[in-house]
Amino acid sequence: MSQKVTASVHPAGSLDVLSKYEVSLLTDPAHKPLKDIFRLCALAVLNTGSDSDNSQEILNAHKDFEVEILQNDRGVKLKVINAPASAFVDGEMIRGIQEHLFSTLRDLIYSHQQVLHSGRFDLSSSEDITSANFHILRNAGVLNPVNTLNLVVCWGGHAISREEYDYTKEVGYQLGLRNFDICTGCGPGAMKGPMKGAAVAHAKQRILDSRFIGISEPGIIAAEAPNPIVNKLVIMPDIEKRLEAFARLGHAIVVFPGGVGTAEELFYLLGLLLHPKNIDMPFPVILTGPEKSQDYFLSIREFVLKTLGETAAQKIQIIINDPEKVAQVISQDVKPVREYRKQNNDAFFFNWQLHIPESFQQPFSATHDDMASLNLSQQQPLHELAANIRRAFSGIVAGNVKAEGIAAISQFGPFKLKGDQEIMAELDRVLRSFVEQKRMKIGDEEYHPCYQLV
Amino acid sequence: MSQKVTASVHPAGSLDVLSKYEVSLLTDPAHKPLKDIFRLCALAVLNTGSDSDNSQEILNAHKDFEVEILQNDRGVKLKVINAPASAFVDGEMIRGIQEHLFSTLRDLIYSHQQVLHSGRFDLSSSEDITSANFHILRNAGVLNPVNTLNLVVCWGGHAISREEYDYTKEVGYQLGLRNFDICTGCGPGAMKGPMKGAAVAHAKQRILDSRFIGISEPGIIAAEAPNPIVNKLVIMPDIEKRLEAFARLGHAIVVFPGGVGTAEELFYLLGLLLHPKNIDMPFPVILTGPEKSQDYFLSIREFVLKTLGETAAQKIQIIINDPEKVAQVISQDVKPVREYRKQNNDAFFFNWQLHIPESFQQPFSATHDDMASLNLSQQQPLHELAANIRRAFSGIVAGNVKAEGIAAISQFGPFKLKGDQEIMAELDRVLRSFVEQKRMKIGDEEYHPCYQLV
Amino acid sequence: MSQKVTASVHPAGSLDVLSKYEVSLLTDPAHKPLKDIFRLCALAVLNTGSDSDNSQEILNAHKDFEVEILQNDRGVKLKVINAPASAFVDGEMIRGIQEHLFSTLRDLIYSHQQVLHSGRFDLSSSEDITSANFHILRNAGVLNPVNTLNLVVCWGGHAISREEYDYTKEVGYQLGLRNFDICTGCGPGAMKGPMKGAAVAHAKQRILDSRFIGISEPGIIAAEAPNPIVNKLVIMPDIEKRLEAFARLGHAIVVFPGGVGTAEELFYLLGLLLHPKNIDMPFPVILTGPEKSQDYFLSIREFVLKTLGETAAQKIQIIINDPEKVAQVISQDVKPVREYRKQNNDAFFFNWQLHIPESFQQPFSATHDDMASLNLSQQQPLHELAANIRRAFSGIVAGNVKAEGIAAISQFGPFKLKGDQEIMAELDRVLRSFVEQKRMKIGDEEYHPCYQLV
Amino acid sequence: MSQKVTASVHPAGSLDVLSKYEVSLLTDPAHKPLKDIFRLCALAVLNTGSDSDNSQEILNAHKDFEVEILQNDRGVKLKVINAPASAFVDGEMIRGIQEHLFSTLRDLIYSHQQVLHSGRFDLSSSEDITSANFHILRNAGVLNPVNTLNLVVCWGGHAISREEYDYTKEVGYQLGLRNFDICTGCGPGAMKGPMKGAAVAHAKQRILDSRFIGISEPGIIAAEAPNPIVNKLVIMPDIEKRLEAFARLGHAIVVFPGGVGTAEELFYLLGLLLHPKNIDMPFPVILTGPEKSQDYFLSIREFVLKTLGETAAQKIQIIINDPEKVAQVISQDVKPVREYRKQNNDAFFFNWQLHIPESFQQPFSATHDDMASLNLSQQQPLHELAANIRRAFSGIVAGNVKAEGIAAISQFGPFKLKGDQEIMAELDRVLRSFVEQKRMKIGDEEYHPCYQLV
Repeated sequence: MSQKVTASVHPAGSLDVLSKYEVSLLTDPAHKPLKDIFRLCALAVLNTGSDSDNSQEILNAHKDFEVEILQNDRGVKLKVINAPASAFVDGEMIRGIQEHLFSTLRDLIYSHQQVLHSGRFDLSSSEDITSANFHILRNAGVLNPVNTLNLVVCWGGHAISREEYDYTKEVGYQLGLRNFDICTGCGPGAMKGPMKGAAVAHAKQRILDSRFIGISEPGIIAAEAPNPIVNKLVIMPDIEKRLEAFARLGHAIVVFPGGVGTAEELFYLLGLLLHPKNIDMPFPVILTGPEKSQDYFLSIREFVLKTLGETAAQKIQIIINDPEKVAQVISQDVKPVREYRKQNNDAFFFNWQLHIPESFQQPFSATHDDMASLNLSQQQPLHELAANIRRAFSGIVAGNVKAEGIAAISQFGPFKLKGDQEIMAELDRVLRSFVEQKRMKIGDEEYHPCYQLV
Repeated sequence: MSQKVTASVHPAGSLDVLSKYEVSLLTDPAHKPLKDIFRLCALAVLNTGSDSDNSQEILNAHKDFEVEILQNDRGVKLKVINAPASAFVDGEMIRGIQEHLFSTLRDLIYSHQQVLHSGRFDLSSSEDITSANFHILRNAGVLNPVNTLNLVVCWGGHAISREEYDYTKEVGYQLGLRNFDICTGCGPGAMKGPMKGAAVAHAKQRILDSRFIGISEPGIIAAEAPNPIVNKLVIMPDIEKRLEAFARLGHAIVVFPGGVGTAEELFYLLGLLLHPKNIDMPFPVILTGPEKSQDYFLSIREFVLKTLGETAAQKIQIIINDPEKVAQVISQDVKPVREYRKQNNDAFFFNWQLHIPESFQQPFSATHDDMASLNLSQQQPLHELAANIRRAFSGIVAGNVKAEGIAAISQFGPFKLKGDQEIMAELDRVLRSFVEQKRMKIGDEEYHPCYQLV
Repeated sequence: MSQKVTASVHPAGSLDVLSKYEVSLLTDPAHKPLKDIFRLCALAVLNTGSDSDNSQEILNAHKDFEVEILQNDRGVKLKVINAPASAFVDGEMIRGIQEHLFSTLRDLIYSHQQVLHSGRFDLSSSEDITSANFHILRNAGVLNPVNTLNLVVCWGGHAISREEYDYTKEVGYQLGLRNFDICTGCGPGAMKGPMKGAAVAHAKQRILDSRFIGISEPGIIAAEAPNPIVNKLVIMPDIEKRLEAFARLGHAIVVFPGGVGTAEELFYLLGLLLHPKNIDMPFPVILTGPEKSQDYFLSIREFVLKTLGETAAQKIQIIINDPEKVAQVISQDVKPVREYRKQNNDAFFFNWQLHIPESFQQPFSATHDDMASLNLSQQQPLHELAANIRRAFSGIVAGNVKAEGIAAISQFGPFKLKGDQEIMAELDRVLRSFVEQKRMKIGDEEYHPCYQLV
Repeated sequence: MSQKVTASVHPAGSLDVLSKYEVSLLTDPAHKPLKDIFRLCALAVLNTGSDSDNSQEILNAHKDFEVEILQNDRGVKLKVINAPASAFVDGEMIRGIQEHLFSTLRDLIYSHQQVLHSGRFDLSSSEDITSANFHILRNAGVLNPVNTLNLVVCWGGHAISREEYDYTKEVGYQLGLRNFDICTGCGPGAMKGPMKGAAVAHAKQRILDSRFIGISEPGIIAAEAPNPIVNKLVIMPDIEKRLEAFARLGHAIVVFPGGVGTAEELFYLLGLLLHPKNIDMPFPVILTGPEKSQDYFLSIREFVLKTLGETAAQKIQIIINDPEKVAQVISQDVKPVREYRKQNNDAFFFNWQLHIPESFQQPFSATHDDMASLNLSQQQPLHELAANIRRAFSGIVAGNVKAEGIAAISQFGPFKLKGDQEIMAELDRVLRSFVEQKRMKIGDEEYHPCYQLV
């Protein structure tokens, strides 16, 4: 179990060659912070199958892990030292994990060099942020001209029940039979189930070019280690760019039962769809789960209705315990999406038309101050309120599983959130239900909330 | 559920074009028996996922099913009329099933024309039977020059417990991680689990040319409908040729818990390995299952020991509840197989060296007379005794699930078997245990034995 | 130049594995005649680029050449002993030649075992001969379902002028730009030029699955060694089956300047197209060459007109010095062919509808007696007369370049031909013009006719 | 001939999707200069097969040519208006040309955005220029990890005799038989012949992944339109980056007869190889041509010897009229190159070790002043002298065929060059011989020198 392996691996997947300068980013002490992020992501990728979602614990358990880059005659190689044994079979690294390792390297170098430190993009401009995201995704090989709109983004918890997990597999299976590809946040639970189901369906349909796209970010990857079925792993620089990637790539969204992270994703999306510029854009959003999750989804819809109103509630469709229907509805509902793209001369592979205001794009740092000063009142446009509720959920996710968030909570105590009474009451209700349903964290320990509603 | 679909399908997989004569085999009333067999096999293939193993029931439930061949400008097409809806997704036949349909057509035509009615092969000569099998398998595209010995034949019951089924998946997964391909009888249960497991492992290892070979025969296919993960389906003319195919293609054999069919396979193989000409040939045979199946396997070994003796018992390795070890042992044990083939200049893809006496090759018809006159005594060479015990099991399988067998039993009552007392006592013990463990038939109905030991 | 190489080669192309019996066909002294034919064909294939078209000379120059078959763990291997050095580059056999070697092996074994000695085909029945041809071609991998009709058969001399050769390349280039594939008799001259031109065009059009089909037969292959651009070589058992293969595979025919062989091909085709059952079938036949060849083609048309009449002459289109027009006309003229096939539910890849009477299929042995008794009179149906003129030309080809024919001529003197005066006068005129234009044989030596008109 | 075609084309080859900003580079009037360069390059690519090498003439003949970029649902499209008809077959653009069109777009956008105007590269730093080149080449898809060193760079004139052209084809053929790929400047003559020869050889060797790399630059492309056999076209920003690309990509260099451009390339390379940091690096340089070119090469060697000395002369090998030997020598001589790369841990696909001083990298503008002030004396290190002689040749090429150069000459008269007497005498001798041998320009017109030696 706690065995560790040291090995050298050749590139696999889409990264082949690096320039001398790019190699220096991982060898020159001047770039230590980047190297540290790469070490963290590499560990996460190698630690696949782990059942912890506590980044800090994982890092502590692998203090002696190291990763080094070597340049040689055929290109680059990576040397991993004291890597988790689960990434290997009889001493040989599992090929999918090897690909993930080099995808991580590819994206971190590209984002660092081309996006964050090149001066090419003005990261305070909405348009440039979108352009940067486009470039990262294109470099990762996930933007390709396509004839069909067949990418379904699946959101949902990493910590779900066996019954819910089996349900996500069945939905993936029904989607896969209909030739849909899957995109998720690439961790366990609802991020893995739909891919497994679709993989079996694609095998039956003899589909060889399946896309199982996993989109992660350095802050969350340790807690949500990519599962090796993901065959296109992309590391976006932060959670906001990750959310934008989901929104621009997906042709339809399926939301499975989840916790705060899932709620964050849903409010991000609703905020966008409520924006006046997007209000007429067709975008299928389906909430689905097994019989038992009916109350959960009704409770979510109630929360949406009470905070964002009727229009928002109509943007979502709830389907209980009927995986085949989910797939059939999506098959139908992507048709108007296709029509809309054609009419607007928009790309099939990237939703340029979707307006994403800068307030949805700017990283939210989730400090105690930022959380305390979130505007959670009705005195603002609906899409701004949605954005702020999204931020509140985002902060709670950080406090639960991200290394920095956990550290901040342990130092300063729970985040404090305040706002309109009705909103706070609803928020309280929903968060309590997540706690009761054990949707906050993996494991049997009692959950200590990282937030306080005031 | 009981919906039926009528549709035309183009060829998929390895059959593309037929000559006019070949087409006439399915259209000319002169060849009705062949057409009937094709109808039966086509129904079985389309009926995938059914939970019945009673051929007769299946046929009765689909009396209005029909399949017709059409010649057109791009080649042939098949029209299926009143086919089971489970073979379709939103009106479109599942591609894997489509391939199976045409594989079935390919093999039936080839066997009919080239093997059974061409005069090219003397089917009373052992060498010619082997040659015929080679030709059928080559035509089916499963004989390819390979560098590695990586085909594991998995035997085991179609009616096994959930726990046993999960175990077969896990073994398949561990084999798949080590680059092994899987060959089975291609029905449900232990014939499907290892392929599912290996498919997930191959996805993780990014193996795109997986071989999931399913070998069936017209007599059994309705009861053991091929699962669509099988990507190379072969229909051999009869059970004896099917068994020879397993023995000549496999580089190692894994036996999971099963019933009489599995026992038949094991005794067939032991009979071969005990033959003086094969006695020194390395051939890994591993019996494995979860914790609970320990008694079952010890009981099987006991039966082998008491009937065939110590040497036979040493040919088999039992590994309980350790899928990783199964895969590691096989990785080791195929090495001497490779050496042996190289030393004897034998093909990696077809075990020419294995001597298979004619008594193992001649179809056993399993009539009441033939069953009654089986020689189940120690007064014969061990491999002949093994062959006869194999035949006894074969007859019971027929009486349980094959259409002809069921008909014979319902007309004349159970088969009668007789032999040396010790052998009969052992046989009685083993068969009883199969009944008790519900390994005889799928379903909850009480089992009525189709045999009697006298 | 006269260096010789001994080497072992693995299979390349479409033959992979042989059964023990098939191997024995080349090792067992009982099958020596087959082995001898294989040795001859192998030598021809390896002797590519040779500038002799005299089979006998080639055989004499390579008396020490030998080819042996070896069975080993990965399949079969061939050992060539004292092979022409031109087949090798720095000791390594050119891959295209290696493929031809194994294509030859594949076809000879298949024809021997399945067609000539299997009893499956009644070779005195027209339908069975066609069926046999279908099977040989399918086994060779040249019958595949296609969407387009794009196979142009090019006929013409192996001994043509540089200017004519360049013209054939240009026609091939214009056809290749329009996505046409090429099928020829696979020797030098007009059989090579169109493929070279099409290869360049396909490179420009980035066509990677070009089909350059060469169809030969054991009797002629030594005189017309396949050029390595041919990527699908097929060896038919005799000239009649080779001609049938051209007629059933081609979607259009281009006839370049040539000699007696080309005339043979043209009369074969005209004979078919004049048959009452085929008279309405669209089949583009274009005679084309550079400026200088105008007289040649007019002379051919004259001959057709005088012997077979107006209808026959209208079946052929002459285009002088305009390669682009040739390609454009064919692009147009295959459209009605496609329509015809669709209306008649005929395959795109094999012209089943074309009626080929048995008299066109039965091998013509070209003995002195047979030549002398040919019926060259108008007192027979036109298609029969065409068939007999075809036979006359066929005999002359044999007398010019085939080993047996040359031997017969050197023993008994020239063949004697007789018939109606007008036909004989025309024949005399045309044959004389071939001699004058040096179209009879490669080389500068004076031509000694192997025939006499009486 | 003078027909023109207007058509829309989808991307082919390695460019698929563009960001909105990238599209704006070709639509926004602010970027007109880039758009103009693209128009020029697009015209050059479409004008393939033209027999003019006068950029100005070509531009004048196509004043109404236009190219526009369109964004649509599947990605981008290009609309060409009044394009040369030779790029089309029956109204359909030749696929290879279509790929070139989009390669041009890809490289111009990338160079503009990432290299010239991104601030990422300090273009006054040698290391950064090399890094920029690496990035352009990687983006163009020509840097891939390889196991073998098989890329031969072929230099030589675009205006050569038929005999010389046929010789370059034969060398390409012999290289292709030995699995070598070809890289040239991608115009006609010696830049096309080796690729044609290698293409035939690769067809015979069944090599499907041939690399025919053409490296051009906007200043020369109109005069040296890429031939469509090139399957990887790269547009470098200027001649110096183009020369660096040749030097870093090639594993061996073959120099065919040529004019001033070829001399420029040779002196560039010799300058590098004479640099103290490169003096021990193995780098095969072979000068070869048919019998008649012997004097030409001896004269070149004499010039090298007299100006750069013995060491320089020893760096080049002359092989006359023996294509097979050229290929065999290269097969041998790349072995030490491989060893050297391995010992120095250098990439096989990019010669990082080769030191290229900044003086070889900085664009030389070839104005009258710059030409007049070139230091052509022995009072400088050898590699600097080589660099200056290279510049002199470069200026003459510009004066002969580049649009700007031709304009400058017509305004101010011939360039004036001065230097040490011995060097000037040698230069005079060599340039005269180029004029006499008609190696300066395509066509029969008398050559008016664009230079004067003073």
